[in-house]
Amino acid sequence: MALEEGNSSPAAEIQASEAESRAAVSTDSSDSKGVSKKQAKKEAMKAEKLRRKQEEAAATAVATAAKAAEADPLAGSYGDLPMEELQSKAVTGRKWTEVGALDADLADRAVLIRGVAQTIRAVGKKIAFVVVRQFTATVQCVLTVNEELVSPQMVKYATSLSRESIIDVEGVVSVPSEQIKGTTQQVEIQVRKLYCINRAVASLPINIEDAARSEEEIKEAEKVGEKLVRVNQDTRLNNRVLDLRTPANQAIFRLECSIENIFREFLRSEDFVGIHTPKLVAGSSEGGAAVFKLDYKGQPACLAQSPQLYKQMVICAGFGRVFEVGPVFRAEDSFTHRHLCEFIGLDVEMEIKEHYFEVIDIVDRLFVTIFDYLNEKCKKLLDAINKQYPFSPLKYLRKTLLLTFEEGVKMLKVAGVEVDPLGDLNTEAERKLGRLVLEKYDTEFYVLHRYPLAVRPFYTMPCPDNPLYSNSFDVFIRGEEIISGAQRVHIPDFLASRAEACGIDVSTISAYVDSFRYGACPHGGFGVGLERVVMLFCGLNNIRQTSLFPRDPQRLVP
Amino acid sequence: MALEEGNSSPAAEIQASEAESRAAVSTDSSDSKGVSKKQAKKEAMKAEKLRRKQEEAAATAVATAAKAAEADPLAGSYGDLPMEELQSKAVTGRKWTEVGALDADLADRAVLIRGVAQTIRAVGKKIAFVVVRQFTATVQCVLTVNEELVSPQMVKYATSLSRESIIDVEGVVSVPSEQIKGTTQQVEIQVRKLYCINRAVASLPINIEDAARSEEEIKEAEKVGEKLVRVNQDTRLNNRVLDLRTPANQAIFRLECSIENIFREFLRSEDFVGIHTPKLVAGSSEGGAAVFKLDYKGQPACLAQSPQLYKQMVICAGFGRVFEVGPVFRAEDSFTHRHLCEFIGLDVEMEIKEHYFEVIDIVDRLFVTIFDYLNEKCKKLLDAINKQYPFSPLKYLRKTLLLTFEEGVKMLKVAGVEVDPLGDLNTEAERKLGRLVLEKYDTEFYVLHRYPLAVRPFYTMPCPDNPLYSNSFDVFIRGEEIISGAQRVHIPDFLASRAEACGIDVSTISAYVDSFRYGACPHGGFGVGLERVVMLFCGLNNIRQTSLFPRDPQRLVP
Repeated sequence: MALEEGNSSPAAEIQASEAESRAAVSTDSSDSKGVSKKQAKKEAMKAEKLRRKQEEAAATAVATAAKAAEADPLAGSYGDLPMEELQSKAVTGRKWTEVGALDADLADRAVLIRGVAQTIRAVGKKIAFVVVRQFTATVQCVLTVNEELVSPQMVKYATSLSRESIIDVEGVVSVPSEQIKGTTQQVEIQVRKLYCINRAVASLPINIEDAARSEEEIKEAEKVGEKLVRVNQDTRLNNRVLDLRTPANQAIFRLECSIENIFREFLRSEDFVGIHTPKLVAGSSEGGAAVFKLDYKGQPACLAQSPQLYKQMVICAGFGRVFEVGPVFRAEDSFTHRHLCEFIGLDVEMEIKEHYFEVIDIVDRLFVTIFDYLNEKCKKLLDAINKQYPFSPLKYLRKTLLLTFEEGVKMLKVAGVEVDPLGDLNTEAERKLGRLVLEKYDTEFYVLHRYPLAVRPFYTMPCPDNPLYSNSFDVFIRGEEIISGAQRVHIPDFLASRAEACGIDVSTISAYVDSFRYGACPHGGFGVGLERVVMLFCGLNNIRQTSLFPRDPQRLVP
Repeated sequence: MALEEGNSSPAAEIQASEAESRAAVSTDSSDSKGVSKKQAKKEAMKAEKLRRKQEEAAATAVATAAKAAEADPLAGSYGDLPMEELQSKAVTGRKWTEVGALDADLADRAVLIRGVAQTIRAVGKKIAFVVVRQFTATVQCVLTVNEELVSPQMVKYATSLSRESIIDVEGVVSVPSEQIKGTTQQVEIQVRKLYCINRAVASLPINIEDAARSEEEIKEAEKVGEKLVRVNQDTRLNNRVLDLRTPANQAIFRLECSIENIFREFLRSEDFVGIHTPKLVAGSSEGGAAVFKLDYKGQPACLAQSPQLYKQMVICAGFGRVFEVGPVFRAEDSFTHRHLCEFIGLDVEMEIKEHYFEVIDIVDRLFVTIFDYLNEKCKKLLDAINKQYPFSPLKYLRKTLLLTFEEGVKMLKVAGVEVDPLGDLNTEAERKLGRLVLEKYDTEFYVLHRYPLAVRPFYTMPCPDNPLYSNSFDVFIRGEEIISGAQRVHIPDFLASRAEACGIDVSTISAYVDSFRYGACPHGGFGVGLERVVMLFCGLNNIRQTSLFPRDPQRLVP
């Protein structure tokens, strides 16, 4: 119980978004309030004690600095900033220039930048080079001993910095006569002042340089007998905060954000409403190994495997057209390059007037819009990814190719691949078909529709002319399935009978089925995994590369 | 085990976003594939059987219709559409006009609309009125017996429709000489054809008319001795699919979507990157009653109570400025008007150069932008909400008022309310302060900063001049706390000692603390609950009104 008394349950607050956790505190009973007050003062005392300790340390640092200053009249121009300087002490009005904005237009101008000390290199005792990185931009900063501005001690201080430390650099922009090879910016900074904001540990678990290296570069080096470090995936993921600093990773997640944005913008321009459906859902009714189960205040609950049922219910609520961007949870033991236990689902559901082609039309225009945007507006990001993970641009048509499942089966048959005409395609067959389609139609993005009913979920509408097939479709990029969609059954009794036919206990989904009893429009929709879009557009080979902190059956940390 | 064999675990697919579940199927072993094939055919047979049954029913319907047709040569102009007509049978190219687009410009034009039969009223046997609703727009459709176009049987058919059924109406737009009171659109449709797409059950659990009624209207009626139905909240939430069809609810969730969009757009224009952090996190380390625990493949795990630790880690990964929109889970037993067990968090985290005022500056400009947008661009939505739930426009300043916690305490003291100067404000004190601020500064939106350190989470940076206070802030709307934010501790050893001082086992958050050892910038951020923004901007009195399918300690369904 002690752990739960008043403010002594701060553990529970670790991840508490302050907005709500503080609200919870303010609605506490007066009882716990009393304890929390006492506790509060106790903690404040502790904090003060620590604070004093830190001040002493700072004082010592100042004394040391003062001593150094005797020896070096320029000692004020460099050094580690003490904590109190970084505690919101003052608003000075100084302006920091972005590293990516440094160019020849700023020649001879004084600038102040903040960034990461990516590499530090001394040339004798009089010159030091520090490459400073901010996001994907890098600039070379030069310290040259100079009686008035840069002391030998300052150069020594610069070379003492550990890689990845955060530094402030003040200096003057200069334009060298030759191209600078190691940095993105084609200017240098002649350093006047150098302060360390936060020191990185001297020995990093991985070097950014190593993590940013392409496989090609490693192999080229091997040819000349040089062995460069290859950082494997587990090491990367174990040290994800460092791994994410590579230019390719900085680009991947900015690209992902762009895709989400175009997805939203396009759909909003087509009158879709963005919604959020619950991730905590009743029962363990969905059964099987694929759901994460939990106890919800004494009731069995599980994490939503998709917003499927709820997005359909919102259509029944008369919203017309909706989309959702949110996490999707799968407890499947899939150890593949394309499965995660938690990923971001991009979901769409919409009333249809006549035909599921209305849904495919949205898919077509949405994705062509996304691809066009990435190719036209995200060149720099794509270049950064390409540099480490080379890929060829995705081939897609202005009007997306539409093939029936039967046509796909026929193409495979002609090519000597026999598949069950009423079964599903396995990964291998999908890849093969992707190659055949590329050869024949010159596209790596296409839709396959009219899947066999038996391989689709119970809520899929059968075809009107043949009940063995369904009004459903899958969409493929580079031979891998990325989107799945369909017209849904909107007639409650037929829906219930389809669920039953698929072995589902209808009583566990009664709220869903009943939603169709109050007047429901014909409708359809589709779902996409955000991480897969990025992975397949960029031809990456593992979905863990496109999730910030991936979750797979073996990975829950960090 | 039987339940998990091959395709016989379709229960697991209920909520499976098709994209991924289908992928899982295609990577099945050939073993389970065999079973699934057999099963697939069995199901296809079942589907066909059902199909045949339906066809027979359709044939009977046709026969009945044929019989009726003998009696009524206009029988083809109305009736219930059989299922096969709604199974994507054909693309006819017909255009449906939106109800909200119907106006006098379309006078004498033939239109086709699809919507909900909101009310149906007969006047004798020769005239019927059907009010059709689509989203928040309504239009009156008139059937008048007429030898060539409308038979008495057709009028009878119209009056047989159940409320909330989905119908297609073809007719000619006419402009009545007098204002139409009961509908949003000021035209009528003279009906020529009327088909029912999907019938609602005859007896609905709640009538939309009742659910859409304002408290005021009920009280006015009471004054003249009339008792109108008042739909209570539990009934609403139990039948959320119907409740959501009211104009106010249609508006609330469109407003919510707009807020999310402005939030994103504003932040992107300020160089923030949208991210997604994991909701499944390791350990039950955060302890207490506030987390939902679950088993993750044999490891103890819980649902993230906020993206706090992860968004800071992304800052450590060099992303500069990030935001996240995603679900947040709280297992708290809070039975208040403002707490949910699952809500949508809007989170921001950013490097700061000098001062946490840089974070407050973002809050200020972001929220003034949001409020301006809502007032200027969402008038219709606000009107729809106002009609059922009247509220006065939010008062806010062009430059948000900033008060220190100490100033707030002083204002309360002067007003006769004593509060602990190093404690937190309770809900009552917050409300009182809200009223005082409104009187003195004429604003219902303001920032209170420099909170006592002891009432803030361990990762909050203490003030540089007084360690009893912190570089933190809360933001209030209409006297209720809505945003909480702060500068964070970015120095790993100090962070660890603060965690320890707050009673947290540091070993359980080592991945987080270690993230600061590789070079970390000073940074800060804040968190907001999306549902609360809508609730407080619109002066609603319960957060369950702004969540599509709210989750509280007692509600997990629908």
